[in-house]
Amino acid sequence: MSNSTEKNSTQEHLSKAVVYSFKNDYSEGAHPSILEAMMETNLHQQEGYGEDAYSLEAIKIMREKLQSDQADIHFVAGGTQANLIVISSILKPYESVIAADTGHINVHETGAIEATGHKINVVHSKDGKLAPKDVESVLEFHTDEHMVKPRLVYISNSTEIGTIYKKKELEELSLFCKSNNLLLFLDGARLGSALTAEENDLSLPELAKLVDVFYIGGTKNGALLGEAIIITNDEAKKDFRFHLKQKGALLAKGRLLGIQFLTLFKKNLFFHSARHANEMAERLSEGIQSLGYKFLVQSTSNQIFPILPNDIIDQLSNKYGFYVWCKIDDKTSAIRLVTSWATKEETVNSFIKDLEALSEMIE
Amino acid sequence: MSNSTEKNSTQEHLSKAVVYSFKNDYSEGAHPSILEAMMETNLHQQEGYGEDAYSLEAIKIMREKLQSDQADIHFVAGGTQANLIVISSILKPYESVIAADTGHINVHETGAIEATGHKINVVHSKDGKLAPKDVESVLEFHTDEHMVKPRLVYISNSTEIGTIYKKKELEELSLFCKSNNLLLFLDGARLGSALTAEENDLSLPELAKLVDVFYIGGTKNGALLGEAIIITNDEAKKDFRFHLKQKGALLAKGRLLGIQFLTLFKKNLFFHSARHANEMAERLSEGIQSLGYKFLVQSTSNQIFPILPNDIIDQLSNKYGFYVWCKIDDKTSAIRLVTSWATKEETVNSFIKDLEALSEMIE
Amino acid sequence: MSNSTEKNSTQEHLSKAVVYSFKNDYSEGAHPSILEAMMETNLHQQEGYGEDAYSLEAIKIMREKLQSDQADIHFVAGGTQANLIVISSILKPYESVIAADTGHINVHETGAIEATGHKINVVHSKDGKLAPKDVESVLEFHTDEHMVKPRLVYISNSTEIGTIYKKKELEELSLFCKSNNLLLFLDGARLGSALTAEENDLSLPELAKLVDVFYIGGTKNGALLGEAIIITNDEAKKDFRFHLKQKGALLAKGRLLGIQFLTLFKKNLFFHSARHANEMAERLSEGIQSLGYKFLVQSTSNQIFPILPNDIIDQLSNKYGFYVWCKIDDKTSAIRLVTSWATKEETVNSFIKDLEALSEMIE
Amino acid sequence: MSNSTEKNSTQEHLSKAVVYSFKNDYSEGAHPSILEAMMETNLHQQEGYGEDAYSLEAIKIMREKLQSDQADIHFVAGGTQANLIVISSILKPYESVIAADTGHINVHETGAIEATGHKINVVHSKDGKLAPKDVESVLEFHTDEHMVKPRLVYISNSTEIGTIYKKKELEELSLFCKSNNLLLFLDGARLGSALTAEENDLSLPELAKLVDVFYIGGTKNGALLGEAIIITNDEAKKDFRFHLKQKGALLAKGRLLGIQFLTLFKKNLFFHSARHANEMAERLSEGIQSLGYKFLVQSTSNQIFPILPNDIIDQLSNKYGFYVWCKIDDKTSAIRLVTSWATKEETVNSFIKDLEALSEMIE
Repeated sequence: MSNSTEKNSTQEHLSKAVVYSFKNDYSEGAHPSILEAMMETNLHQQEGYGEDAYSLEAIKIMREKLQSDQADIHFVAGGTQANLIVISSILKPYESVIAADTGHINVHETGAIEATGHKINVVHSKDGKLAPKDVESVLEFHTDEHMVKPRLVYISNSTEIGTIYKKKELEELSLFCKSNNLLLFLDGARLGSALTAEENDLSLPELAKLVDVFYIGGTKNGALLGEAIIITNDEAKKDFRFHLKQKGALLAKGRLLGIQFLTLFKKNLFFHSARHANEMAERLSEGIQSLGYKFLVQSTSNQIFPILPNDIIDQLSNKYGFYVWCKIDDKTSAIRLVTSWATKEETVNSFIKDLEALSEMIE
Repeated sequence: MSNSTEKNSTQEHLSKAVVYSFKNDYSEGAHPSILEAMMETNLHQQEGYGEDAYSLEAIKIMREKLQSDQADIHFVAGGTQANLIVISSILKPYESVIAADTGHINVHETGAIEATGHKINVVHSKDGKLAPKDVESVLEFHTDEHMVKPRLVYISNSTEIGTIYKKKELEELSLFCKSNNLLLFLDGARLGSALTAEENDLSLPELAKLVDVFYIGGTKNGALLGEAIIITNDEAKKDFRFHLKQKGALLAKGRLLGIQFLTLFKKNLFFHSARHANEMAERLSEGIQSLGYKFLVQSTSNQIFPILPNDIIDQLSNKYGFYVWCKIDDKTSAIRLVTSWATKEETVNSFIKDLEALSEMIE
Repeated sequence: MSNSTEKNSTQEHLSKAVVYSFKNDYSEGAHPSILEAMMETNLHQQEGYGEDAYSLEAIKIMREKLQSDQADIHFVAGGTQANLIVISSILKPYESVIAADTGHINVHETGAIEATGHKINVVHSKDGKLAPKDVESVLEFHTDEHMVKPRLVYISNSTEIGTIYKKKELEELSLFCKSNNLLLFLDGARLGSALTAEENDLSLPELAKLVDVFYIGGTKNGALLGEAIIITNDEAKKDFRFHLKQKGALLAKGRLLGIQFLTLFKKNLFFHSARHANEMAERLSEGIQSLGYKFLVQSTSNQIFPILPNDIIDQLSNKYGFYVWCKIDDKTSAIRLVTSWATKEETVNSFIKDLEALSEMIE
Repeated sequence: MSNSTEKNSTQEHLSKAVVYSFKNDYSEGAHPSILEAMMETNLHQQEGYGEDAYSLEAIKIMREKLQSDQADIHFVAGGTQANLIVISSILKPYESVIAADTGHINVHETGAIEATGHKINVVHSKDGKLAPKDVESVLEFHTDEHMVKPRLVYISNSTEIGTIYKKKELEELSLFCKSNNLLLFLDGARLGSALTAEENDLSLPELAKLVDVFYIGGTKNGALLGEAIIITNDEAKKDFRFHLKQKGALLAKGRLLGIQFLTLFKKNLFFHSARHANEMAERLSEGIQSLGYKFLVQSTSNQIFPILPNDIIDQLSNKYGFYVWCKIDDKTSAIRLVTSWATKEETVNSFIKDLEALSEMIE
């Protein structure tokens, strides 16, 4: 965008040579079922600001899936917005949030949390997850009023590097939080992928019971935009719409969010789409592994991090879009491949075939 | 929404008995052309965060319409979001914004501006507009470091009560601001309606030259969501995407906003839709006036405020949706009727006919 | 101060020609008893941050005077600091504070309250005070989540224009607040003067019961600096020292504040000093009145606002320091005269004599 | 303080058994010369808010000592206040400050910086200092608008652990900052001790040229309270008094700060006092070292960190006040001893003698 000369990220849109982009799970528009639902309902007049019939219906259905008729559900446009509203609505001015160093709020939200006045207490985490001992180390350090008071634990499922929380891990963390007067908030921008991952043993209702607030990501799982914030902790429910409005998150046409979550949840499209993304990632993983390559982390969700020779990475990038995640050594790097509801099996096969050909050439 | 027991506003969605709602200009989905464009482009992979081909193309076309190839253009989801980001990006911590007491930022944004740290200096305004003398009175009062320093003037076109700025008025205000080191920011949530109003003599390129920042509202003129922030002042352009990201306004699928503004501006749909809304409002006005009723304010934009007997208002509300704006005397009140791109001529005719019948019954 | 070329207020310190300044009640250092106490205790080592023996003793004695052994008491350096910490510690992000338009927080604190994120809902008040109906008008206007939620009522005693709350007025306001889930906060920067004013019928223990938080001003009543925040509402007490520290208000040598309040309250110096200031103001008032002049407002506290001919004001200003408060008509203006613990009877007599002489000359 | 049941730090004031507290450098009141100056000037009427004759004179003299007649100088009450005002006055909302992990702003200010909206980018530092490579690592990581933009580097001299910056180190850091469009801010709460340390080779005028803003601590060097903020960067000077006022830092009786800095600088009391504190620390160090003990860090400023057997620490604490800084192994810990202008040679000698006796007993 010639628009902003100050920005640093690559701005050119996808070059035509690129056959398919594995850069992220938001390169396409919406799942076709969502567009259909929007067409069908388009001219029905509705109340604004989230009080339309579609939002109300979506909330009803989602409560059923959550097995929680007391949960408050609010739809917002994006993940950073969800994070900053939830966190600032819960914390008092001197309270802080604990997060992994790789946490989205700590790295990739341009200081959105601090902009609402709150410190993030960072814990180094190799796998992107937080365990009770991590949280405990922060608590032990913060002993008086000359320091912030840690009050909220922020985790992501799946994490920034594709790992997921097993049921036992979440139970332990939840228990630790309850015992220490901490609240637990789960960023579910990629929750669909986490809950449908092969190694997952956690159900949505179980998750809802173990955390105080979380959100279910629509944007990265087939919606045009939209995250559903679920509040199960009663205290955190109070006056939440005031927070939404103040932060600019109450859309006049809230129907746009309601229709999408209605479509995602009334027939399990949310889970089907996520599972498809995971299956495509698994297929990619298996193919890459069978060619003898290793991975930065073990992931069964829709983000995988194969380690490839730099020469091959260069060649692949002519045909496929993806990010180089980090340098491993002088000759190899880890790349990130992300799949989505829209990734086709033939694209995956083609990628593996191309990698195979390149690998043979190099040998 | 059973979701939030604390809220006070009427929550029921439109009852089936209501034939048509004149409550606002965001009761429907989107103009059909917009949905079509979304369908057509849906599976084309694009860069995220506003760097997609559609956003870039929309910006290009809009710059042409603005006759300003140097304007920076950013798309955001809604009006409160646009207001809080623009204002907080421009002001230093001790600087304030001047607004009419009826201004949206002063009344209907849940303190969103103050939440970013800035005071609003309020001027009482009968017609919702600000004149140089209004601004001057604020400047004269603020003389030293024990008070905030007014720096930005916020106006709306059309205003909250449907009035619009004539070219001469905006020129005078712009000149006054420049002479007093003030920046001028125009909230254009209903700018389409203002620029296509019968009494309007201001063009979009002229407006762009007279203000430092403004936004063009999509939500209230046929888009699903979206406001286009236009920055012509060079200093205000700097690092604007950082502000967008920090406030949660950078949508992953920025294409959703780009496609809509592209559709609104590539063939003047924006102006056609707004003009239609105004024509429907005029027709309503004329019909109501011909029945002998008066109006709270003179408006040629898409919001009108007829004064009707309370009995008739009650009867009308069984069939039409609208807000009772204010009490006039014991027997009459002003109501607000809002038209949009989606308002049909037959609905307008039917409203006038019903009003005529009710008026005769009462006599 | 050549230091800051941007500032607008008159910067020159008092010219030698001026015999005495009635500009304010903080032109001198401290009451001699305070300096003595500082000398005596100077080399006794103490804990820092308000945990010294003097602060603890001061708190003990003040609780006795307040007849409230449950009150939390914290000492801070100044009034703006007290206001911003109390208000931001009590309110949730979307909650607002109601104040008179002349209120110090609304006019003379450079947006300090808004800088902590909160809107001030302003009510026009002729005498600087708030009555239940004023607060009610704000409540009636704020009906849903599109607006801020008023939660705290801010009043001053004495007010910016020298008026004071009678017991009945404060009781009614307190009752109204309790009935409407509002908290009541009293800015007592000049509380000493209010409670020792001739027309006052309110005691310190009564006041403490009627409000949720208030502060007792030391700076304007003989201290070098210091305001004592008194919190009687249990909820508002929680973790208050975290707020103090975060806003930079926890002084390392908190003893400086403790010693002063100990000196002010252990032998009623606080009340004696305030009464003296009021007596000097009364004497001034009577003298001025006896010369036939009127006043802008009736005040029995230490600020009076006589209306004098502009010629006489000019002449007086050669010998006495004071502010011209406002223009009354083309020939007369109101000036503000402030007395303090340090104002001497002979200075007051001399001022009246000079005014008498000038009045005769002009006739 | 029975006042705040929530706080965790030890609250009892110094027990009578304790002969002398080495806990910190703010256990006493003020240097006697300061109290004298306050007595002498006490009844001279002065302008408020830092525009008194003493503040103006102090600024004039300090500019001479700084050899910078263009420096802006402002006095505030404390260090956290200075830090939060300086940092928030310089940064735009999305900009961040880089600090060592041990930095006061990162650990001991209850999130005061984040409360003004800004992220602290933390670098691990063994000696409490920042080198160009530390800053560079932060810059390299922050590449686009999805992350904060680092803009200010915060350092302390002396640091939290008593180390100081040599001239060459500060020159290199300053140069790196200038080359990378970063501003450099030095927290000088203990600057006196740093500049008079044995190993110091940096002068006050040199320091003033190498940084953009810094402050000179009075509180920890003989003043009752007060830090002098020195701004040499022109851009950072603008409207600074507005920031001071908004954050509650403009004292009505600014004379209190002016008189103290006037006293500290008109005859070099500032440097003499600091040198005395350092000499007492050196004497302590030498004595402890001669008994065969080691230190956690090498320090020539007024904080030293000897490593002692736990048994001896227990015994010492009956007679002397100090903090146990950290555990070294099962049998030994590092303690912190802080000296000040008020520490007497005989106290130091007595401490060493007591330590010697205890050491012999244990052997």
